[in-house]
Amino acid sequence: MSDAAVLERLLATIAARKDANPSESYTAKLLARGVPKIAQKVGEEAVETAIEAVRGDRAALASESADLLYHLLVLWTASGLDPAEVWSKLEARIGTSGLAEKAAREEQ
Amino acid sequence: MSDAAVLERLLATIAARKDANPSESYTAKLLARGVPKIAQKVGEEAVETAIEAVRGDRAALASESADLLYHLLVLWTASGLDPAEVWSKLEARIGTSGLAEKAAREEQ
Amino acid sequence: MSDAAVLERLLATIAARKDANPSESYTAKLLARGVPKIAQKVGEEAVETAIEAVRGDRAALASESADLLYHLLVLWTASGLDPAEVWSKLEARIGTSGLAEKAAREEQ
Amino acid sequence: MSDAAVLERLLATIAARKDANPSESYTAKLLARGVPKIAQKVGEEAVETAIEAVRGDRAALASESADLLYHLLVLWTASGLDPAEVWSKLEARIGTSGLAEKAAREEQ
Repeated sequence: MSDAAVLERLLATIAARKDANPSESYTAKLLARGVPKIAQKVGEEAVETAIEAVRGDRAALASESADLLYHLLVLWTASGLDPAEVWSKLEARIGTSGLAEKAAREEQ
Repeated sequence: MSDAAVLERLLATIAARKDANPSESYTAKLLARGVPKIAQKVGEEAVETAIEAVRGDRAALASESADLLYHLLVLWTASGLDPAEVWSKLEARIGTSGLAEKAAREEQ
Repeated sequence: MSDAAVLERLLATIAARKDANPSESYTAKLLARGVPKIAQKVGEEAVETAIEAVRGDRAALASESADLLYHLLVLWTASGLDPAEVWSKLEARIGTSGLAEKAAREEQ
Repeated sequence: MSDAAVLERLLATIAARKDANPSESYTAKLLARGVPKIAQKVGEEAVETAIEAVRGDRAALASESADLLYHLLVLWTASGLDPAEVWSKLEARIGTSGLAEKAAREEQ
């Protein structure tokens, strides 16, 4: 059974491919192209995700969402960002009341 | 300690707010605005994420990434997409060799 | 000497390629792929434009801006949008005072 | 009658507002916020443009396209980019045959 914990395993896989041969691993190739190129891919996949949602194509939305998440994790890796920083920001949104939730967002 | 499992709890929180008063919950308000507006937010947050990555501002990258993930989960909820469909697509990318990984991406 | 009037000539060129062979014209090929694909290209080129601006690479900003404008004109053509509708909206922003200008934007 | 030349007049208007009071002019306020913020607006407006095109709402597509163009011109101004550089890149795409056109794009 898959759940969100797959993201932790995917992060480990991405980290392990850092030193792979760029001609043999798409992840290694992406990492070699650097942050601006990976950031661009995150933007592109988000646009595709948005468009498939508006079109109402649920299967394509799942595929594009997976592509978006994968590229986002690669961007964190390339940027040296500790994923725990993102998870703890999301944690802060859970359990707050509606109004507190909105205030938390606006403070960011 | 936070890890990616926070996304499962956040999905449950979002689902629980579906019927909340839009004037009291940002999530309920977003859901009330419908898929095109939420899709737009996903695109916007991804652009902000990309820009902060290029600027090299790691704290801002963490914040914007959290915003992006939150809005993506709201988009799945609004679209009636089962998150397991996304997790299983990501699962398929783990453990494949570099070349298989690339091929898997291209088939999508 | 080039000025913004080049966009009118480019619109005419795009219209003329509508019935060209998609294997021989990039414009015809794009038009054949339909609005969602062209809309996605507009989003992608805008992300690239934004990233090059943040990087401060002026030559790349000019190139990506040209790509963005070209794809935007193709999107109008594919959508059956009369460019005069866009020009007149922009016309309305000129000559208004700062505050009127802001109000005009917010009314949209 | 409006045509693409409105962009030249809009560029002049934007340049004239550079030194206006940010509390009285939306353009002056945007310019004061700097390139990353303006670049973000360009990305956001493009996402909105893409979404309205996919939805098939032609009036909204015209509005969002105007917003996108306005913010793009502000981005050029903030970046010190001479618009003639963009126009001449677009000029190069006119009059080329389909295949030359594609090659010109790919060289960029």
